[in-house]
Amino acid sequence: MHIVADENIPLLNEFFADIGTITRVPGRTMTAADLATADILLVRSVTRVDEALLAGTPVKFVGTATIGTDHIDLEYLQQAGIGFKSAPGCNAQAVVDYVLSALSVLVDERGLQFTDLSVGIVGVGNVGLLLRQRLEAMKVPVLAVDPLRSEEETGPQVSLDEVLQADVVSLHTPLTREGEHATYHLINAERLAQMKPDACLINSCRGAVVDNTALLAHMQKHRDFEAILDVWENEPELNVDLLQRCLLATPHIAGYSLDGKMRGTEFVYQGLCEFFGLPVRRKLAQFLPEPGVKRVNFSDQAPLHQALRTAIRAAYEIRVDDGVMRSAIRRSDNLRETFDRLRSNYPLRRDIPTLRVGVPAKCQELQNLLTSAGFDVRLK
Amino acid sequence: MHIVADENIPLLNEFFADIGTITRVPGRTMTAADLATADILLVRSVTRVDEALLAGTPVKFVGTATIGTDHIDLEYLQQAGIGFKSAPGCNAQAVVDYVLSALSVLVDERGLQFTDLSVGIVGVGNVGLLLRQRLEAMKVPVLAVDPLRSEEETGPQVSLDEVLQADVVSLHTPLTREGEHATYHLINAERLAQMKPDACLINSCRGAVVDNTALLAHMQKHRDFEAILDVWENEPELNVDLLQRCLLATPHIAGYSLDGKMRGTEFVYQGLCEFFGLPVRRKLAQFLPEPGVKRVNFSDQAPLHQALRTAIRAAYEIRVDDGVMRSAIRRSDNLRETFDRLRSNYPLRRDIPTLRVGVPAKCQELQNLLTSAGFDVRLK
Ligand SMILES: NC(=O)c1ccc[n+]([C@@H]2O[C@H](COP(=O)([O-])OP(=O)(O)OC[C@H]3O[C@@H](n4cnc5c(N)ncnc54)[C@H](O)[C@@H]3O)[C@@H](O)[C@H]2O)c1
Ligand SMILES: NC(=O)c1ccc[n+]([C@@H]2O[C@H](COP(=O)([O-])OP(=O)(O)OC[C@H]3O[C@@H](n4cnc5c(N)ncnc54)[C@H](O)[C@@H]3O)[C@@H](O)[C@H]2O)c1
Repeated sequence: MHIVADENIPLLNEFFADIGTITRVPGRTMTAADLATADILLVRSVTRVDEALLAGTPVKFVGTATIGTDHIDLEYLQQAGIGFKSAPGCNAQAVVDYVLSALSVLVDERGLQFTDLSVGIVGVGNVGLLLRQRLEAMKVPVLAVDPLRSEEETGPQVSLDEVLQADVVSLHTPLTREGEHATYHLINAERLAQMKPDACLINSCRGAVVDNTALLAHMQKHRDFEAILDVWENEPELNVDLLQRCLLATPHIAGYSLDGKMRGTEFVYQGLCEFFGLPVRRKLAQFLPEPGVKRVNFSDQAPLHQALRTAIRAAYEIRVDDGVMRSAIRRSDNLRETFDRLRSNYPLRRDIPTLRVGVPAKCQELQNLLTSAGFDVRLK
Repeated sequence: MHIVADENIPLLNEFFADIGTITRVPGRTMTAADLATADILLVRSVTRVDEALLAGTPVKFVGTATIGTDHIDLEYLQQAGIGFKSAPGCNAQAVVDYVLSALSVLVDERGLQFTDLSVGIVGVGNVGLLLRQRLEAMKVPVLAVDPLRSEEETGPQVSLDEVLQADVVSLHTPLTREGEHATYHLINAERLAQMKPDACLINSCRGAVVDNTALLAHMQKHRDFEAILDVWENEPELNVDLLQRCLLATPHIAGYSLDGKMRGTEFVYQGLCEFFGLPVRRKLAQFLPEPGVKRVNFSDQAPLHQALRTAIRAAYEIRVDDGVMRSAIRRSDNLRETFDRLRSNYPLRRDIPTLRVGVPAKCQELQNLLTSAGFDVRLK
């Protein structure tokens, strides 16, 4: 079979060399001519996949190594009988790590422990559900809402009003502008006013789910209200005053881990194997490089929550990203260019489960806590 | 021999049981009567040691497990021919760790690396000299001044004016109010005005070496000037506005490590052995418990400065102390009581050299950097 693929998809050879010949092309400039003999098309979000690209080509399967499918004309693919696979949830772990690192900073700031805070989760999809599972295993009280999913899928739900009473509210919805449950400006002045005056809002989903002007105004009135933002309204033209008032600010990189990116390729590979009835021979674990921080060993002298925060921030230190962004924006005279450069030069990080933590066999509680947070716990 | 000792000195049995019978008494209420049959007196800073306490007792040697000697009438001891040993430098490593953790936060905040900053050191005694050695080994440019010591003792010196041009200025003098080089308000409005507008001042020596009112006024004018304070003028009645404006604020705990405290006992033990001509049989390393974080392993994938900051803050995370202090002071209606409670409940930490870091044999540069910072580096 002939595979035409965006040259920036990682691990192409590793996953697909067995299956066919691979031709690598730049994703942004791909045309129908590139696909004249292609059976399989593999893209990222920069390639528009529709009738104009595919009509008259032999393409039987399209895979996109992304969680989004805005760039794909799914209706056309279905009509044309072309197989399809995207990679929903491939970077959910990375976003969960982001939220855990953010929470660890918040508890440090406030002289608290994780279990002192309740966390409200809005949107219990791939990210929200994994976050819920991790937090609940860590014994952090969770309040969740997702009107588009059943409690069977999401676990127990409460109303949005109740979720907004949590100490921390973390958003994990798509951005939608229509329908009863549209999320555009879901968090507006009125909803902010419902929240605790010293609550913390975390947004790592889509910028415009929060009315950014209202958020800044709210924080100017409530000195103890905190925000941790990875996504911004009108990104990359974000509100610099808002950035300065945030506890933590990052340039839309919550999901940017090496593992997540490579897992995107694996998900597409699995979909392709299923579609063509091929055996699944390759596993991501074969190809992942060693993480920079390989292992952290604790003794029985380690206080539980200190060990937790040390492990989380050995895996991912959100403050580094925050510092790099603030200093780049402070020196920048072109927000758009700076924001995009921060994203494209982002040093891909590793997911929490790649960090081994050694714990003495007798420290049952510490083992449970670190396992709950997602670490690869080894007994000693 | 009969040893009378403050009951709060750690490792009394471990170090002194061989040498004599130990009687433990509360340090604050010790009287001459307690010393009626004592050959050796061991104190901390809460016991005033003078003629009133010692005259008429058989005490031949006094040891204080502290770096300071303000509570000891040294002249009287000398006249009376009583041997003496204090523990200068016993907690120098802990203060150096504090400064390294502080610097790691500053570089995170600013999106920099350690070697991007020059560090000015005022006072090159036990702490200042160790700090200089560590930083220079890490290739951080250092500017130092200590008019009371020769360059043979301190390494190259420049003028105070030149030191004040560094990106970071860290103070390590005693508090003195008399003489040409008195340090009271050494850093005043005029000297602050000499510093870079975006400099960072670190004070972990004595609060009144910095004019705290002038510092707050300076920072209100210069938004990019940062301060990291462990010691405060009029401590514990510190200026809360100043605390809020600090990048990091801690309650005079820079030197509070378990290792430093126990090393104080060891130094006194060594002085006592020398005075009485006894063999030095005990070493601190025999008695130190395992640290909570025992080991961190890096792979060859670890970027140099990310590994450094991860290791430093796995050993000592200054942000935790900062968070605990801010939140305690925010909720406090009695500054004095809160400040003292933070100090007396301080969870003793471990020194950087107790943390083993595993580094691949081929990563020469990373080995050097971590060794320079004081870690116990093991090759793999
Ligand atoms: N910052 C990043 O780098 C990054 C990385 C990954 C994902 N994301 C974003 O995070 C969001 C969540 O990602 P995901 O993979 O979990 O998506 P998902 O589609 O799996 O989950 C989204 C969930 O939100 C729910 N939802 C929709 N409208 C809602 C409403 N009004 N109230 C409550 N819930 C609502 C949906 O029912 C769904 O369960 C998406 O917007 C995604 O684009 C950002
Ligand atoms: N925050 C804490 O928990 C903590 C812990 C340990 C020490 N300390 C304090 O830190 C300071 C340094 O401790 P140390 O053990 O290094 O003391 P040290 O006596 O060994 O060194 C102090 C040095 O300062 C120099 N000095 C005096 N006046 C000076 C001046 N005007 N300009 C420049 N240098 C001057 C001295 O010559 C000496 O070399 C002391 O004040 C000590 O009390 C604080």
